[in-house]
Amino acid sequence: MKCAVDIESRDVEEMYINIDPIQAGGRLTVDAMKAAISFADGYSVCDNCRSPFRLDYIQKPPIAQFHADLAAWLNMDTARVVPGARRGFQAVASTYVEKGDPVIVTSLAHYTEFVAVEEAGGIPLEVPKDEKNHITPDAAAEKIEAVILEFSKTPPLLFIDHVDYQFGNVHDVAAITKVAHQYDIPVLVNGAYSVGIMPVDGKALGADFVVGSGHKSMAAPAPSGVLATTNEHAERVFRTTQAKGDVTGRTFGIKEVEMMGCTLMGVTVVGMMASFPHVKERVKHWDTEVAHSQAVVDALLSIEGTKVLSDYPRQHTLTRIDTRESFDKVAQQHKKRGFFLSSDLKKRGITGVIPGSTRVWKFNTFGLTEKQIRHVGESFVEIARENGLNIV
Amino acid sequence: MKCAVDIESRDVEEMYINIDPIQAGGRLTVDAMKAAISFADGYSVCDNCRSPFRLDYIQKPPIAQFHADLAAWLNMDTARVVPGARRGFQAVASTYVEKGDPVIVTSLAHYTEFVAVEEAGGIPLEVPKDEKNHITPDAAAEKIEAVILEFSKTPPLLFIDHVDYQFGNVHDVAAITKVAHQYDIPVLVNGAYSVGIMPVDGKALGADFVVGSGHKSMAAPAPSGVLATTNEHAERVFRTTQAKGDVTGRTFGIKEVEMMGCTLMGVTVVGMMASFPHVKERVKHWDTEVAHSQAVVDALLSIEGTKVLSDYPRQHTLTRIDTRESFDKVAQQHKKRGFFLSSDLKKRGITGVIPGSTRVWKFNTFGLTEKQIRHVGESFVEIARENGLNIV
Repeated sequence: MKCAVDIESRDVEEMYINIDPIQAGGRLTVDAMKAAISFADGYSVCDNCRSPFRLDYIQKPPIAQFHADLAAWLNMDTARVVPGARRGFQAVASTYVEKGDPVIVTSLAHYTEFVAVEEAGGIPLEVPKDEKNHITPDAAAEKIEAVILEFSKTPPLLFIDHVDYQFGNVHDVAAITKVAHQYDIPVLVNGAYSVGIMPVDGKALGADFVVGSGHKSMAAPAPSGVLATTNEHAERVFRTTQAKGDVTGRTFGIKEVEMMGCTLMGVTVVGMMASFPHVKERVKHWDTEVAHSQAVVDALLSIEGTKVLSDYPRQHTLTRIDTRESFDKVAQQHKKRGFFLSSDLKKRGITGVIPGSTRVWKFNTFGLTEKQIRHVGESFVEIARENGLNIV
Repeated sequence: MKCAVDIESRDVEEMYINIDPIQAGGRLTVDAMKAAISFADGYSVCDNCRSPFRLDYIQKPPIAQFHADLAAWLNMDTARVVPGARRGFQAVASTYVEKGDPVIVTSLAHYTEFVAVEEAGGIPLEVPKDEKNHITPDAAAEKIEAVILEFSKTPPLLFIDHVDYQFGNVHDVAAITKVAHQYDIPVLVNGAYSVGIMPVDGKALGADFVVGSGHKSMAAPAPSGVLATTNEHAERVFRTTQAKGDVTGRTFGIKEVEMMGCTLMGVTVVGMMASFPHVKERVKHWDTEVAHSQAVVDALLSIEGTKVLSDYPRQHTLTRIDTRESFDKVAQQHKKRGFFLSSDLKKRGITGVIPGSTRVWKFNTFGLTEKQIRHVGESFVEIARENGLNIV
């Protein structure tokens, strides 16, 4: 069925249990879907834009209130919506990083952090991960020292992923910000895999900036995200334009430079807003989500030869699994080769594992029901058994 | 009716004829609405992302083909989608403008151009408009000369609005780019009020960059837009990341720095795509749209004391009208004061004029049917007559 000329309708979320690593937290809630239909037109939220003419001041729909609620919920002082987490990174990097500045990221940093630093003219430098795939405060301190020595300059910014995209490991952000602050380095916490799916307390993390992704973890349409900060930094990162027309004398009021004036319009911001009450509620049930994740990982680990590369026991729903000694052995003999796994999963109504992957791959169980979790775990075990693997 | 907790459903486009100056070109087509429903989930377009893992390479939905089609349609060499026209300005300014560089804009430039220049560290300087509210090539040349003299430096970039947001006047972009090119200054054409509603031929305009807005003029959800360029500039503005992890040795493939890696996901890009065939068709009927605009303006001008501040005869659907000597005279006596006009229009099923405005205001007739146009024109005249104004 087509939804437009040349565009096949998407029915993945209706027809399958989707364990795609990046899609789980961005599925819309029912309210967000209704809001998306209601506010899909371009400048739909601007019907009631009144002086001082900035999108985040609009009261109907209650965008202004949403901003205040977002900041409070993250336990930060102020927040803005942005077109994706990466645009939050960009706003902060563009403000704090000068050409040639060393900027601390980590060995588990998402590529968009590198790109944001590069775009600002900085040099991204990685804190090494330890053998358990964690970023430790000691490693951070050591890297900061080394960078200061090499560049004769304190890095203006440190990025740390609350939960990294590679392993779904939860890092000790509070300890790392403590170290960074000893050097007066502000810290941006990348919450793309935490804000909206697990509890995040910016102040407890010691964050100077918390960035979240609407389409990754806040059940919102893309591109959407949030950049929250403290009173200490708000004036700088959210500075208003100083531009003035040299001929006309025009000035541009309270438009914020790094936000490029008005922020997210239409469907994206209203989608975030409509999901927000549900998102606030769902993070309270994070323990259940983690238990679900653990159940599927345990099912996988019952297949002889399978290893989990993420922290075990699991503390997150995103997991990196190593099936080189299990499913990949099957792939070597199977007439469908590595495609047998995604194909067998699909027969059981499960999608989201990259077709062909049987070596090291990731999946995300966020948002599945108890029954779906059981089905996913059992499906992996059945597929293994049917293909002659031992269950231990 | 609410579409989510605290969010009233929006029914403006269903219940009213909307002549809001910024909303007309961004109303979704039926196909875009269907696509929005189908692809509203966060990372919905990423189901079939395969190596080299960049969003604009995805074939299903046909995002890659859409990019090629967009460039061809604008008669440019290559194009990318961006989260709004302003993010296109930002990408170009960030690439071409160094701190302290003078950048040429105009007295009719949209504020987002100023902000993009400011964000890049540049100094925006305006080409004056003439008494007819046009930017002339002579004025551009004069300004360029003056700036070179003052800064001992050729500006790295010139922004020109194809159609300005203040008057909806169509400017002689081809002549202005010719002047700029004599000084080797690349030109960014802001097509926020042209791309998607009237024919735009980038090469004929001599544009180095054409930027369009999805939510303003391409019947797409927000935030969306397009940045198109020539082969001469593509490599620079769409340069791929050179970042490399100093510890891990990671590199990040073909992700583009100014695009922040992957571009528009989900509902925004698919909305643009679904509307695109209709948008390509509708620009062919621009003459009819202009005639419609002219008809409403003529109706307004039949009300004694009313003046049109935009070009006359009209060449665009966005018009700035001066009713200080007509509707504002009524407002001074009316118990609803200036609100009588929007209120009387609303009774006739027309919305989009800022409540309270009776002095100088703007409206946009784009996309209305013949019958709606007649109704809008007649409504203005009737309201005038009912309130004792002369019809001439």
